[in-house]
Amino acid sequence: MGLREARRDEVRQIVEMLIDDQLGKGRESLDDLTPYLKAFDAIAADQFNTQYVWDESGEIVGCLQLTVIPGLSQKGAWRAQIESVRVKGSTRGSGVGQKMMHAIMAIARERGCDQMQLTTNKVRTDAHRFYEALGFEKTHEGMKKKL
Amino acid sequence: MGLREARRDEVRQIVEMLIDDQLGKGRESLDDLTPYLKAFDAIAADQFNTQYVWDESGEIVGCLQLTVIPGLSQKGAWRAQIESVRVKGSTRGSGVGQKMMHAIMAIARERGCDQMQLTTNKVRTDAHRFYEALGFEKTHEGMKKKL
Repeated sequence: MGLREARRDEVRQIVEMLIDDQLGKGRESLDDLTPYLKAFDAIAADQFNTQYVWDESGEIVGCLQLTVIPGLSQKGAWRAQIESVRVKGSTRGSGVGQKMMHAIMAIARERGCDQMQLTTNKVRTDAHRFYEALGFEKTHEGMKKKL
Repeated sequence: MGLREARRDEVRQIVEMLIDDQLGKGRESLDDLTPYLKAFDAIAADQFNTQYVWDESGEIVGCLQLTVIPGLSQKGAWRAQIESVRVKGSTRGSGVGQKMMHAIMAIARERGCDQMQLTTNKVRTDAHRFYEALGFEKTHEGMKKKL
């Protein structure tokens, strides 16, 4: 029970959580898992990327991706970046999100990271409150561009 | 001339550009290059991280780090993230920044990335205008927390 590395046969359950989301429902699809599996394999093969799930007595109820980023700035400070943090709809409000975040912060510290960072869409006001309660600050603009 | 991978013996020049900055001047130091060299080695050894410099007839006048991030979200879309984008003080306003950005966007496309992302401190209003002119949008909050 708790945060652990995801297995390849859990990709469908992760995508189900990505779909069960105000923004995800319009941009994800279970019709073809191939691109998700390809991404999972790239994550699993890389030293600095890990796909995690929160396992509650054998049931997957949360997920997030950790990317560890070495960098020159701030005297060579390493950053822990998290992406695609989701909690299963039926489990929201139960504290799984907070437990997942505390677990990933501990992992990031063990990996030598000095700070954790994430971007969250400006429409996700609930998420902003969630992260602020955990000590995150909205110090930066998150800017994106399609290529 | 143009954007190319940085060499280890150019780390001092990169740190000089990181210091020559409204935020960097308070948090970087040339007293001991060891942590910067360690970070450079980690970047150079990794498949998904690259430290670039802009070489203008043998002179280093710009830098940025590219991190390619595989991810499950958005049907397994790969992201290109840039960090520590700097242009040498004496060269600012000459268009090097724009040329550097166009070059890195081309590299990111070649590497299969669907979008480019970055976070920039909310006090860097000049940087926001610079990125917006290149088509970036402030769609996200960039949230950070010290670990």
